[in-house]
Amino acid sequence: MNDLLIIKIGGNIIDDDARLAAFIKQFAPLPYPKILVHGGGKVATAIGTQLGLQPAYHNGRRITDTATLDLVTMVYAGLVNKKIVAGLQAQQCNAIGLSGCDADIIRATKRPVKDVDFGFVGDVMATGVRTDVLDNLLQAGLTPVLAPLTHDGQGNLLNTNADTIAQEVARAFATHYAVSLIYSFEKPGVLRDVTDNASVISAIHETAFQELVADGTIAAGMIPKLENAFSAIRHGVKKVIIGSADDLAALINGTCGTHIQ
Amino acid sequence: MNDLLIIKIGGNIIDDDARLAAFIKQFAPLPYPKILVHGGGKVATAIGTQLGLQPAYHNGRRITDTATLDLVTMVYAGLVNKKIVAGLQAQQCNAIGLSGCDADIIRATKRPVKDVDFGFVGDVMATGVRTDVLDNLLQAGLTPVLAPLTHDGQGNLLNTNADTIAQEVARAFATHYAVSLIYSFEKPGVLRDVTDNASVISAIHETAFQELVADGTIAAGMIPKLENAFSAIRHGVKKVIIGSADDLAALINGTCGTHIQ
Repeated sequence: MNDLLIIKIGGNIIDDDARLAAFIKQFAPLPYPKILVHGGGKVATAIGTQLGLQPAYHNGRRITDTATLDLVTMVYAGLVNKKIVAGLQAQQCNAIGLSGCDADIIRATKRPVKDVDFGFVGDVMATGVRTDVLDNLLQAGLTPVLAPLTHDGQGNLLNTNADTIAQEVARAFATHYAVSLIYSFEKPGVLRDVTDNASVISAIHETAFQELVADGTIAAGMIPKLENAFSAIRHGVKKVIIGSADDLAALINGTCGTHIQ
Repeated sequence: MNDLLIIKIGGNIIDDDARLAAFIKQFAPLPYPKILVHGGGKVATAIGTQLGLQPAYHNGRRITDTATLDLVTMVYAGLVNKKIVAGLQAQQCNAIGLSGCDADIIRATKRPVKDVDFGFVGDVMATGVRTDVLDNLLQAGLTPVLAPLTHDGQGNLLNTNADTIAQEVARAFATHYAVSLIYSFEKPGVLRDVTDNASVISAIHETAFQELVADGTIAAGMIPKLENAFSAIRHGVKKVIIGSADDLAALINGTCGTHIQ
C-alpha cells in the first residue's frame, strides 16, 4: 500500500500568524500524497464576540446555534481555510480548500438531543467520507485542506470537531493506504504534567490511557483527542502521533511526540 | 464543441433566502457541464458594519483594505459559498465550492495604484484561469461554485468582481467549449428605463451600448457588467445573456433577457 499522510493542525497554531507561517513552510514540501485538516482557533470566538455572540460549551465542545453556525462557516471555511490555502500556494503546494459539503466529501447527521442539545453539530456517518473523490484530487497532485464542517445532504451545514474529522478521514482511507495520522499542536505531546513540556509520554496504550484519565493525569480537551487517536488505531490507521507543530519532520519520523499504540 | 454553461448569480438574489432557494432549485437540474459564479451580496456590508468597518467604494467597486479583505474572505468564500453548495447538494447537484486560490484556479495581480488605491483587489492574469483543473472537475461530474476571490500566488488573497470572474472563466473556456454565459440577477434584463421592468432591451450591440452610455440610459453598475459581457463576446464566448434569475430556463433558451451581440 502507498503511504498517505494526514496532518491535523491545532487552533493555537492557527491563531499565531508567525507559527502558522512556519507550519506552512514545513508542511508544503512534505511528499505526496497528503491531506491537511485544520481547527478553528480562537479567532471565531473573537469575531463572534464582536458580533455580539456568546460562545457556549459543553465538555469542551461548542454548542452551535444558527448564528454560531454562520460564524464558524465564515471563519473556518472562509477566513482560516483560504488563508492556509493561499499560504500553501505561495510555497508551491497545490492545495485545495474544502468543507464537508464540497463534492459531498463528508456527510454527517445532526447529533441527536439527549441531555444536551449541541445544536448544528454533526457526527460523521459510517460511510460519510468520500475517499473516491478525495483520492481523485490526490491523484491529480492536489493537497486537500479540510475545514471542520460537514453537511447532512439536506442543505444543512454542520459543525464537526477537527480532531474527529482527521480521524474519520484517516479511518476511511486505512483500507487502501498505509495512513499516518499526525495530531500537531502547540504542545510537544501528551504530557504527564501539563505545566512541564519535558514530561512527554513517548508512547501510550489504550489501557494506560484509561488509567491516566481515571487518576486525572489526562484531562479536558486531551481526552477526546486521545479517544480519536485510539479509534484511528483500532480501525487500521498505521501510525498515530501527537506532538508539536514546530518540528513536523521529527514528529512524522517518530523521533518526538506521543505514539499511540 | 460541447456546450458549457456558466451562470453568474447576483448579490440581490443571494441576500434573499427565498429567491436564492428558488434559484438553486432551478440551477441544480440544468444539464452538465456547468459552473456557477456568485457575487457577495449586502450581507458582507451588514456584517462589516457590525464589526465596525466602513465600506468604501469607487465607481461601484469596493476598496479593499486588510480588514475588508478578511471580511469578504469570510463572507464570500465561507458563508455564501458553502450555503449555496450545501443547498445544491440537497438538490442532487454535486457542487464543489472554490475560491481562486483553491487548486490555483484563478490567479490575479494586485491592481496597480493610479488615481485610486483599490487595496487588495485583483485583476485576473492573461493566463490566470486554470481551465485544465476546472475541466477535470467537470469531467468528474462536479459543478464548480466560484466565490469572487482570486490570489496572487504569493500568499495573498485578492477581491475580484464576480461579473469579471464569470467573464474571465467564460473566455478561458471559449477555445474548447461552446460557452453560454448568463448574467442572472433581480432585473429582467438591461432596461431602457430603470424604473420600468417592461423596458427590457432585447438585444444590444457594442456601438448601441456606447450610445446608451453617452446619453445616460445605461449607467452605474450596469456599465461594468455590460463591458464584461461585450469582452466575453469579443473573446469567443458563443452566447451572453443578461436577465432575471427567476426564470433561468427561459433565460438560457433565449426567450427573455438582453442578448449581447
